Amino acid sequence: MKFNLKKSIAVLSNTPKTLHTLLNSLSDDWLLTNEGENTWSPYDIIGHLIHGEKTDWIVRTKIILSDDESKIFESFDRFAQEQENNGKTVQELLAEFTQLRKQNLEILAQLQITENDFLKTGIHPELGEINLKQLLATWTVHDLGHIAQIARVMAKQYATEVGPWNAYLGILKS
Amino acid sequence: MKFNLKKSIAVLSNTPKTLHTLLNSLSDDWLLTNEGENTWSPYDIIGHLIHGEKTDWIVRTKIILSDDESKIFESFDRFAQEQENNGKTVQELLAEFTQLRKQNLEILAQLQITENDFLKTGIHPELGEINLKQLLATWTVHDLGHIAQIARVMAKQYATEVGPWNAYLGILKS
Repeated sequence: MKFNLKKSIAVLSNTPKTLHTLLNSLSDDWLLTNEGENTWSPYDIIGHLIHGEKTDWIVRTKIILSDDESKIFESFDRFAQEQENNGKTVQELLAEFTQLRKQNLEILAQLQITENDFLKTGIHPELGEINLKQLLATWTVHDLGHIAQIARVMAKQYATEVGPWNAYLGILKS
Repeated sequence: MKFNLKKSIAVLSNTPKTLHTLLNSLSDDWLLTNEGENTWSPYDIIGHLIHGEKTDWIVRTKIILSDDESKIFESFDRFAQEQENNGKTVQELLAEFTQLRKQNLEILAQLQITENDFLKTGIHPELGEINLKQLLATWTVHDLGHIAQIARVMAKQYATEVGPWNAYLGILKS
């Protein structure tokens, strides 16, 4: 599948409500448990998505489209949410993510990106030159990756409870 | 996390709406493309979930709780959806799954399962003796596994479009 802006926005638009419904009315043992040391719970993952909305996707899109001489992105802090979310509930985080995503998709629409913009570039601090199309495709895949991660982290809470079925459930081994 | 009926039902109740929101307003290239030969598209996966609602979880629960002498489960057909869904749209499949899941959770409530029932057993044709708690935990994990699978299958449609970010996106390698 070739990158398509409208089809990417369709996925990006769905994510807040998907997270709301996936986590709707769940107890803390689903929401706050991770996969083991140095891994994330669904709660942590939503915090990470919030940080991306604040500092990554739209910020980098604007850098690529700007007339600035330097197009170097700031490094993304994968652990910022550990400080930022202190004391907030999952519902508060979901509401914050929903609001930020809505704003960012409005900004994206205002930028009136055309196919001519897709190959404009910025400099990633580690990956080097990347273009706008790659950034927006990554935003989309990043959402899907974290939806899959939340489902996997939850599934693993029942890894022993499924008994012999463990052998059939690939999600428990991924 | 120990098996808990109420907490399992919370997850099982969310799945239809989660699938609706995850796939809301998406084009066919997100919905109908798979990961390669002998793999499933989101469309196929919903068909598989429907077949489970019809032939697996509640049917087996009733066998376990019955007074029948034979407690042997029928084998589950992992490819039944290939015939059954012929010509149906994704929206029709989602509506069918939503309706079946609702009915099955109503039946589950009517069965008034208690902790004393959790260790009652049936015979899986390949796995041998399993108990009700394991069956219901598996139903829950099975949902989460297929939600993760749908997100992964979609993510892979952009595997080349993300460019150098491919290296950072674990979902594309899973």
